[in-house]
Amino acid sequence: MKIAEVMKRFVEPASVAIVGATRKSGEFSMNIMEHIISYGYAGKLYPINPNATEILGVKAYAGVSEITGPIDLALIVTARETVPGVLQACADKGIKCASIVAQGFGDATDRDGHELNRQLMEIVRSTGIRVLGPNTFGTANAFINFSSSFARIKLDKNPVGIVCQSGLFFHGLPEFRLTGKCIDLGNACDIGFTEALEYFENDPQVKVIGLHIEGTKDTQGLLKAIKRATAEKPVIVLKTGRSEQAARAMQSHTGSLAGDSLIWDAALKSAGAIRVNDIEEFFDTVRMFSMAPLMKNNSIAVATFSGAAGILAMDAMRDTELQMVALSDDTTAKLVKLAPGWLKVSNPVDYWPIMMGYADQGRAMMDVMNILLSDGEIGGVLFTQVAFAPKYNEMMQMFLNHLAGQYPGKPFMSAISGTYNSDFINALQQEGKHLAFHTPERAARAFSHLWQYSRLRRGL
Amino acid sequence: MKIAEVMKRFVEPASVAIVGATRKSGEFSMNIMEHIISYGYAGKLYPINPNATEILGVKAYAGVSEITGPIDLALIVTARETVPGVLQACADKGIKCASIVAQGFGDATDRDGHELNRQLMEIVRSTGIRVLGPNTFGTANAFINFSSSFARIKLDKNPVGIVCQSGLFFHGLPEFRLTGKCIDLGNACDIGFTEALEYFENDPQVKVIGLHIEGTKDTQGLLKAIKRATAEKPVIVLKTGRSEQAARAMQSHTGSLAGDSLIWDAALKSAGAIRVNDIEEFFDTVRMFSMAPLMKNNSIAVATFSGAAGILAMDAMRDTELQMVALSDDTTAKLVKLAPGWLKVSNPVDYWPIMMGYADQGRAMMDVMNILLSDGEIGGVLFTQVAFAPKYNEMMQMFLNHLAGQYPGKPFMSAISGTYNSDFINALQQEGKHLAFHTPERAARAFSHLWQYSRLRRGL
Repeated sequence: MKIAEVMKRFVEPASVAIVGATRKSGEFSMNIMEHIISYGYAGKLYPINPNATEILGVKAYAGVSEITGPIDLALIVTARETVPGVLQACADKGIKCASIVAQGFGDATDRDGHELNRQLMEIVRSTGIRVLGPNTFGTANAFINFSSSFARIKLDKNPVGIVCQSGLFFHGLPEFRLTGKCIDLGNACDIGFTEALEYFENDPQVKVIGLHIEGTKDTQGLLKAIKRATAEKPVIVLKTGRSEQAARAMQSHTGSLAGDSLIWDAALKSAGAIRVNDIEEFFDTVRMFSMAPLMKNNSIAVATFSGAAGILAMDAMRDTELQMVALSDDTTAKLVKLAPGWLKVSNPVDYWPIMMGYADQGRAMMDVMNILLSDGEIGGVLFTQVAFAPKYNEMMQMFLNHLAGQYPGKPFMSAISGTYNSDFINALQQEGKHLAFHTPERAARAFSHLWQYSRLRRGL
Repeated sequence: MKIAEVMKRFVEPASVAIVGATRKSGEFSMNIMEHIISYGYAGKLYPINPNATEILGVKAYAGVSEITGPIDLALIVTARETVPGVLQACADKGIKCASIVAQGFGDATDRDGHELNRQLMEIVRSTGIRVLGPNTFGTANAFINFSSSFARIKLDKNPVGIVCQSGLFFHGLPEFRLTGKCIDLGNACDIGFTEALEYFENDPQVKVIGLHIEGTKDTQGLLKAIKRATAEKPVIVLKTGRSEQAARAMQSHTGSLAGDSLIWDAALKSAGAIRVNDIEEFFDTVRMFSMAPLMKNNSIAVATFSGAAGILAMDAMRDTELQMVALSDDTTAKLVKLAPGWLKVSNPVDYWPIMMGYADQGRAMMDVMNILLSDGEIGGVLFTQVAFAPKYNEMMQMFLNHLAGQYPGKPFMSAISGTYNSDFINALQQEGKHLAFHTPERAARAFSHLWQYSRLRRGL
């Protein structure tokens, strides 16, 4: 079966058999089927449990062989000792794709684990069934209200495809529930990065790809797949296990080999990947690419409520290719008209003193931002504010969403500080029109990654 | 007047005259006096406004000369042209401390601004009145429910003293409202870092000092003051304006000279300061020191729900002095008893497979954590979890608070990922017993700073 079809069954299954479906239900029971139903999945579900005739109102089966309809995907949730037998039964039934949750295969230290792994691989080889995992959350797909993770997650229809080696990435962060679509490779005994990348590269629902790489047996294949994908959409990479100690820990996490950190750095860069350093940067960058248009040039204008916040943004741009350019004569002249005589109008534009001269402060911010956002020489605009109070948040959200709607082609992001900034940023993200970050530094870093990819796509 | 007494009047005023008090009130009116009343300040307030007989129910005066009682602090909120006259009137009245809000003095580009600044300095010189600012939020002190900032802030009685050159720092972040006590030096025409540091060094309500430095005219004095203070309590420094461009922007923000970044790095290090790189790290580090006990050694044990999260933490420790040590035979033996046979028990301790073997999963985490926290050879313990759901958060908070209470002398922090992590971390912080961060990397960074200062205090 072609990879495209295999991956479609894993990520967009129309029918799923859950082998080892549990009758325990309710909070903290980690009942995968209960989660799937709660998401509103419209496909067919077949719980397999020899001790039940129905589970959660759905007819249960003693084994996959009893099911009559087609089965796109088998979720194997049984204990590790039973997995080879179950997998063989799935293959015998003609199932082409199976996701294995249990731990203790290539990631184990005992002989049994490695023997079980060998048996799995032998079944894959002899039957052609494809395996995701073991030691995996499986897949998630917000567009069909599906996730096979045993932890309940929140699904958001973001145009994002994540390939990871840990269920950690299914959860996202408050401002960004990430999935979109997620593929957890777990130990990656069969399905690996290249298969997952090929799927996302050609997936029209996915605008940006995020990879969490612990290690891989096929580094060259991965790099080639990344290079091909970056011609279509940005690929963000978090390569973990950079210390020797971490590399050893990974061996027992997913059984992966880490490889040398510097070689990875160089290879990922030449493949056109956007490498990030930590999980916060990973989520920030993926979220940014899911919303921002590309930059025409690397010049940034900052409009700041506070001189200090503008300086923090400039500090963060110091070692990047971004430029805080001088404003054009035309733009400067327009701003000078709004400002008190004593204010030096330059970039960053300190709009607080300008606001103080207006009766309507919202109007002042609007005038400043219209001048900067309509300046065709400026590649990106960064706005900084404080989330002073819930009512103020509401007004600022309206203001930023309005501006984002007025200038859809202009890369435009905010850095929102203060006691209420999380609420502010979460609310903006739910509306999905304007990109906001928690600090000027995080926004500047996002701009830097945006320019890196914009430049690549422009062939500069 | 001695500096201690001067700073006491600025930060702990028993009576405040507000020159230029406004009759506008309600949301977004930036009425300082209204804010002060709303915080529950118990001192005496004297609004000065020649066009009012009372403001917000308090008797108003036409000028400071009409007030009969003592006045610790004058807040000057009038337009910049009027400030020298008002300041002279305050000095004539015998007021010793004045905080000036207006912008457009040393930070201005026009001749008027610099002339006004010269006049201020002349009044300071000739009368002995001490000035905070201009271009300042003034001070905040949660312990007396006071803040002179024109933006309303949230006060929290944290044992933290902040000295800054921007009101940005009065607002803090959701999980940490910062003040404690705050001194905004603004342009620092008179009161500067050395005066503020001397006050906080000797303040028993302050356990940790945070400095936001744009620049100073007295670098040597600042470094000496930092060195003296670090013998008593940690001093966290965010030095901004590292690029040439940023240095120019600072000139127009607070009129400060930036100085060379590398020289600052070396000088701050030798003074014993803990230098941080961005505003997120600043708040994380200040918050950490407000709660964490010092470390006895640099060895860290990680207990992780996810192999990947443990690896992220190790990656973040890579270039620090922290060590992920091998667990002792005794501790390893205790953990092996709890774990499935196939699990390699090492550091990081992957507690998920251990939980899977327990009927009560909370009990499993408790057993693992008791073993690690009671191990005297371990210098610090990092715990990672996902905030799966609001109800799960509640249980995890109870669990972490309980453990923190059991091991008050053990440096112990959490990294909480997932969709609900902000709520989780905010709730924990409000309870004030256990330190949690948003990512493993931020927690590892906090541990690294904790060890840096612990080592200094141990003379290592």
